[in-house]
Amino acid sequence: MFFHMKELQYEAKPSRPDPLMARNMQELLGGQFGEISVAIQYLFQGWNSRSTDKYRDLLMDIGTEELAHIEMLSTMIARLLDGAPVGDLEKAAQDPVTAAIIGGMNPQHAIVSGLGAMPADSVGNRWTADYVAASGNLLADFRANLNAESQGRLQAVRVYESSSDPGVKDMLSFLIARDTMHQNMWKAAIAEIEAQENIVVPATFPRELEKQQVAYDFYNLSAGEESKQGRWAHGKSMDSMSQFRYVSPAPAFGPAPELKPSPPYVHNTPPTTRGDNS
Amino acid sequence: MFFHMKELQYEAKPSRPDPLMARNMQELLGGQFGEISVAIQYLFQGWNSRSTDKYRDLLMDIGTEELAHIEMLSTMIARLLDGAPVGDLEKAAQDPVTAAIIGGMNPQHAIVSGLGAMPADSVGNRWTADYVAASGNLLADFRANLNAESQGRLQAVRVYESSSDPGVKDMLSFLIARDTMHQNMWKAAIAEIEAQENIVVPATFPRELEKQQVAYDFYNLSAGEESKQGRWAHGKSMDSMSQFRYVSPAPAFGPAPELKPSPPYVHNTPPTTRGDNS
Amino acid sequence: MFFHMKELQYEAKPSRPDPLMARNMQELLGGQFGEISVAIQYLFQGWNSRSTDKYRDLLMDIGTEELAHIEMLSTMIARLLDGAPVGDLEKAAQDPVTAAIIGGMNPQHAIVSGLGAMPADSVGNRWTADYVAASGNLLADFRANLNAESQGRLQAVRVYESSSDPGVKDMLSFLIARDTMHQNMWKAAIAEIEAQENIVVPATFPRELEKQQVAYDFYNLSAGEESKQGRWAHGKSMDSMSQFRYVSPAPAFGPAPELKPSPPYVHNTPPTTRGDNS
Amino acid sequence: MFFHMKELQYEAKPSRPDPLMARNMQELLGGQFGEISVAIQYLFQGWNSRSTDKYRDLLMDIGTEELAHIEMLSTMIARLLDGAPVGDLEKAAQDPVTAAIIGGMNPQHAIVSGLGAMPADSVGNRWTADYVAASGNLLADFRANLNAESQGRLQAVRVYESSSDPGVKDMLSFLIARDTMHQNMWKAAIAEIEAQENIVVPATFPRELEKQQVAYDFYNLSAGEESKQGRWAHGKSMDSMSQFRYVSPAPAFGPAPELKPSPPYVHNTPPTTRGDNS
Amino acid sequence: MFFHMKELQYEAKPSRPDPLMARNMQELLGGQFGEISVAIQYLFQGWNSRSTDKYRDLLMDIGTEELAHIEMLSTMIARLLDGAPVGDLEKAAQDPVTAAIIGGMNPQHAIVSGLGAMPADSVGNRWTADYVAASGNLLADFRANLNAESQGRLQAVRVYESSSDPGVKDMLSFLIARDTMHQNMWKAAIAEIEAQENIVVPATFPRELEKQQVAYDFYNLSAGEESKQGRWAHGKSMDSMSQFRYVSPAPAFGPAPELKPSPPYVHNTPPTTRGDNS
Amino acid sequence: MFFHMKELQYEAKPSRPDPLMARNMQELLGGQFGEISVAIQYLFQGWNSRSTDKYRDLLMDIGTEELAHIEMLSTMIARLLDGAPVGDLEKAAQDPVTAAIIGGMNPQHAIVSGLGAMPADSVGNRWTADYVAASGNLLADFRANLNAESQGRLQAVRVYESSSDPGVKDMLSFLIARDTMHQNMWKAAIAEIEAQENIVVPATFPRELEKQQVAYDFYNLSAGEESKQGRWAHGKSMDSMSQFRYVSPAPAFGPAPELKPSPPYVHNTPPTTRGDNS
Repeated sequence: MFFHMKELQYEAKPSRPDPLMARNMQELLGGQFGEISVAIQYLFQGWNSRSTDKYRDLLMDIGTEELAHIEMLSTMIARLLDGAPVGDLEKAAQDPVTAAIIGGMNPQHAIVSGLGAMPADSVGNRWTADYVAASGNLLADFRANLNAESQGRLQAVRVYESSSDPGVKDMLSFLIARDTMHQNMWKAAIAEIEAQENIVVPATFPRELEKQQVAYDFYNLSAGEESKQGRWAHGKSMDSMSQFRYVSPAPAFGPAPELKPSPPYVHNTPPTTRGDNS
Repeated sequence: MFFHMKELQYEAKPSRPDPLMARNMQELLGGQFGEISVAIQYLFQGWNSRSTDKYRDLLMDIGTEELAHIEMLSTMIARLLDGAPVGDLEKAAQDPVTAAIIGGMNPQHAIVSGLGAMPADSVGNRWTADYVAASGNLLADFRANLNAESQGRLQAVRVYESSSDPGVKDMLSFLIARDTMHQNMWKAAIAEIEAQENIVVPATFPRELEKQQVAYDFYNLSAGEESKQGRWAHGKSMDSMSQFRYVSPAPAFGPAPELKPSPPYVHNTPPTTRGDNS
Repeated sequence: MFFHMKELQYEAKPSRPDPLMARNMQELLGGQFGEISVAIQYLFQGWNSRSTDKYRDLLMDIGTEELAHIEMLSTMIARLLDGAPVGDLEKAAQDPVTAAIIGGMNPQHAIVSGLGAMPADSVGNRWTADYVAASGNLLADFRANLNAESQGRLQAVRVYESSSDPGVKDMLSFLIARDTMHQNMWKAAIAEIEAQENIVVPATFPRELEKQQVAYDFYNLSAGEESKQGRWAHGKSMDSMSQFRYVSPAPAFGPAPELKPSPPYVHNTPPTTRGDNS
Repeated sequence: MFFHMKELQYEAKPSRPDPLMARNMQELLGGQFGEISVAIQYLFQGWNSRSTDKYRDLLMDIGTEELAHIEMLSTMIARLLDGAPVGDLEKAAQDPVTAAIIGGMNPQHAIVSGLGAMPADSVGNRWTADYVAASGNLLADFRANLNAESQGRLQAVRVYESSSDPGVKDMLSFLIARDTMHQNMWKAAIAEIEAQENIVVPATFPRELEKQQVAYDFYNLSAGEESKQGRWAHGKSMDSMSQFRYVSPAPAFGPAPELKPSPPYVHNTPPTTRGDNS
Repeated sequence: MFFHMKELQYEAKPSRPDPLMARNMQELLGGQFGEISVAIQYLFQGWNSRSTDKYRDLLMDIGTEELAHIEMLSTMIARLLDGAPVGDLEKAAQDPVTAAIIGGMNPQHAIVSGLGAMPADSVGNRWTADYVAASGNLLADFRANLNAESQGRLQAVRVYESSSDPGVKDMLSFLIARDTMHQNMWKAAIAEIEAQENIVVPATFPRELEKQQVAYDFYNLSAGEESKQGRWAHGKSMDSMSQFRYVSPAPAFGPAPELKPSPPYVHNTPPTTRGDNS
Repeated sequence: MFFHMKELQYEAKPSRPDPLMARNMQELLGGQFGEISVAIQYLFQGWNSRSTDKYRDLLMDIGTEELAHIEMLSTMIARLLDGAPVGDLEKAAQDPVTAAIIGGMNPQHAIVSGLGAMPADSVGNRWTADYVAASGNLLADFRANLNAESQGRLQAVRVYESSSDPGVKDMLSFLIARDTMHQNMWKAAIAEIEAQENIVVPATFPRELEKQQVAYDFYNLSAGEESKQGRWAHGKSMDSMSQFRYVSPAPAFGPAPELKPSPPYVHNTPPTTRGDNS
């Protein structure tokens, strides 16, 4: 159960309206690695966590913080859209900057949301749960989370670099700092679990059931052997259970497949047409 | 440029047809963390890699291997569908197992693909590029890759556990082993880059531009303090640049937002209706 | 900013596991009119509300309650999936009920979420923000909300009817009651605004700018005149500004359109092919 | 069965081409609340209507009218795209207005549809049946319809406000007037059914089966009590069956959930890693 | 403008309810090549057709017929769902056929549409305009149409084969016959245009602007030369303008690409990390 | 199994950066008829092809070539984005061309992909397998392929026409030529199969099972008889099995449908509300 407070976690006030920045800011709100994605991802990981331990509590803490970030970004976007120009070619003809704004702003900000934020990304794709991962395996999921915070901070930094507005930059400097913390945090949680289990997810699958002879081979499948120089191509494997091996050229272990013809009732191309001998 | 060989990377032959297993196997082919996702993800990361070094070659090697895995899974699914029963309630009424197959198999395997594999997941969602990440920042992207291989191996293991078919299990034991290698490999690549840069993505953003006073705080935003026990709540931060700090209760740094009314031409609810004093 | 409490708004405990019910229950969680939809819808309406009045507070109250409903449903679904059978045709062959479960349950509950809830509907479509409306006009949006609560209660009632599990029915009896309140509540809010403005959204558009002579006509465009019997076909219009008029047959006010040929550089079918005289 | 006439329901002719207006106009054609949405929604409600009464006839009348609106908008968009400039940076550099058009117009209008309308919204999201509701319960569905016409008229008004083209404004003044009628009409149909049943959908669910003690409570779940001032917080409920009650703070009726560990075969994080005592 | 008649184009009455057939039949209604797809596709092609000739009239005739097919399938599906069992595991345990129905039927038919048809396919994907093509070039589009009718008839035939219900088969025998006509019809229209233009779309692009030396080469890019035996590998090209040529192995005309490093403000992996010499 | 070579199939180098062209070029890469679509489509058709004959080899050859085209377009797009301006309104205000670029370029090219290509179309819709067809019936699928190459060449030509960049035009002249070959090639493959079977897909369905009396009728369902002039309205049918017949007006063969009321447990609108006599 949740409770909402009226205060923002951090101020979200631009120095001036900027409908193009509003469009771009949507990426941080409703994009693949935006705040809706991490909020929903962490909360579902928490709710599906079949334990009442520190990991569940951690997920609820951070998932709840991300809800506050959605709120900050929505507020910022509404303000960036204050008094946005709405017009047509006639208006556009008079002033190049107005023309660029009318051409470049997200038309749905005017027509659909009435100058408010939308649960969508910077090109208008509506947010989808295709973006989230919650598997029930915490090591897998914490890696998803570390990735999300890495992509998310990278995108926030790129928007920061594109802005000359002190208010926008101030809010982003807060969100970027929080992403620093969250990357550190998931890294710490990952280290804890890897120390107890193994780096390979899921650690509980008996290794003798996998085809061990190919479990540490690097297969060179593209021309050139630059990839041979990496850490992944020689020395002890990262799970400390074997040695990396660089295999070039890569072998094919299976034959060319021959499939049986399909039954007549699906009306695929019949063998007679194809001249099959099968 | 690519070249195709007729051989499979590994044999993909079930011991018997099983349309329900064909349905489930689609998750590993066309699901969020299936082989199409990793193939497209690695190849785009490679093509966008603005260098001709070992990392680009690595991405092309593994991206190309994943194409072979798509091929193996497609082959396996076609064989699992050999002679699949297609029928209606009349037929279903006679035999409970046939009834369960007709009820449970993916109807599109019969109606749409003619007993062949589809670029879709186990519930029939068509594959979408919503699933892939390619940011131009290798550390961010290698974390996406480590996550994908972790989720992918987890799912392959779950399908393995649900099967009693030696042929299915044999192919999966190969794919699971390759996922072991790929997790090791991305882990190695990540370690290399983190050693040169920093664990925080992007490492090139000047830290003094982020709001440093909140960059290592853990905010307790859900009842209970179980989350205080984790490594993320105390001690040196994982990037070695500061100390974690557990803050409870979490503060609000910003005021409750007050937005300006919208201009009349968007026809939002007017202040007069709302009794606003603004 | 939000705060999370560990307690559920209401108990969410089935009397026994039931993977098919878990599949169906997903509709109420992540379907078009499920709890994710209303939570995101109300919160975005609140954040975009350019005022700090009772309507914004109302939206934050109810949006926050819906977050608690997401939590209840996620909890219920995880419990319905306790120890769910995971298996193949061999297993299915032995017991018709197991067969039906394996055939009918959402395979992603086993393979993807590890027996946890997903942000998806009962057939596995991932939740999308296509489902939400937040326009900046409260009367429009409260109608969206009344619709969502009507469809939502209807769906909850249908799931209730299909269950024989006292625990499932108990939780649903709570959610259904809350939907009763929420329908009453949006109805009340709508009545307030309609009393101040008009029933036609947006009330602020000058009526003389619309083509008034067709603003109260009912056009009979399908065979039969059963539709003439309704309240919408005669008497004073609901906005009290005119009289309904039943027009049969419906007129065409515009000519058959003639479009200009396209410029050669788009390479549409050229007039010469078409034998155009234009 | 349908029959098509060549005439338009109303003229759809702009005074001049305007590719940006063509882009925006797509919202009214293929957006969430555009004409495709209402056409498909009303027709499916009609076809699923298990009766041959006035409601079915009404749905077929209006669904058929909406097909004519799709046609008008498609015609208008094709004309707005007449001779649209297609070019690159070189061209753009010469004239700011051309630059804004090339930058702002939907590139698919040139590349994909050959200067024709598309079944998509103003940012290029292809139309999806995610937007429609047809539940079999007319009161629920008529509320969906009233919402659609409210959002739709609001959007049409916003496009009207942004245009200085007499031809565009003339067509929109027709569509806006029809939306006035359709809002009145659904309002009338709703009033009829509410008078016979109850305002709560579905009216046929026995009230004693819902948890009646929470069916009229308003739960204050966000800071501040502004929401206490509304009609929804006191007095007789809108369904006349009880009294509204404002409850602050809102109670939690359920305990913190404790879930059982998952079975080993799904390979979630095991209790040993988590230090569970369960 | 359209007019609706109450009669069906052809009877749509099953001999008995069958919820699994209702699920499957959805493919023909709302699937990728279902009736909604062809209706929307033909109507948009017609509306975008910049001429008032026989091709536009043809498109409106057949697009309008497809609307009648949507109606027939919706009617059939509603009847197949008559009195569909809605229940849970308890019920399912008693009777294997009921179990298979409850497991296999689309749960949204009960929960969402109230035993009515939905604009969705057989696995529940909502219909999307991703499925349609309307390019402004009639030869391209008529090929899209011929494909749609080919895939559509194939799917209808597969559903026919799976049914033992005389009523279902009777309706399908009508739809299959209409698909025969429509394939013949598009074939005829294609022949007309090819005779006037050329088989290569668009015929209006000057051939000397394409790289003519590669315009008739077949590149062997997969092991084996079975593909050499086809008509496409030798003899006069189908457009009669050159000779097919089988080229094995296929050449690479371009060098390995070297991209420039990205600017610092996008924070991609920097050259220093990569050890680039560029 | 695949092998990757470093060389491009053809050079992909623009003469100058152009972020708007990069945006548009995405259509040819990740659009409905872009290179990802044809690659995935041909490869799945090949893998599902239940034979090891020339058709399967053909599909693997061309599917593999399309992978090379994805690579070329990704390379071109990365180069078109070299040093793309990233900025806000302040910058935009100074120079109209920069303003148009910032307004018009795909913001995700800067924020999400770090100036690299994306698996998406020109308006930012992520690629989806909704675009592909692979039915198991080669004649149906080769028609899908001929359509894809026709739409694809048309789009490439349109982009060619909009460019003044010699490097862009050079690469497109290669791709356009390959599309010429691919249209010729599918046309040849289609001719081969039609000669063996029949033009009607699937040829294996016994004609006496379809309702033959309507299999060659053209139904005039829109006003006007322009469509009577076409080849499809008279003379021998294209499959040589009958004569086309123009039927005007088109008959209705079925009665107006009457559906049974739904069972009470789905809570549709009850007959009592509707005044039904049924």
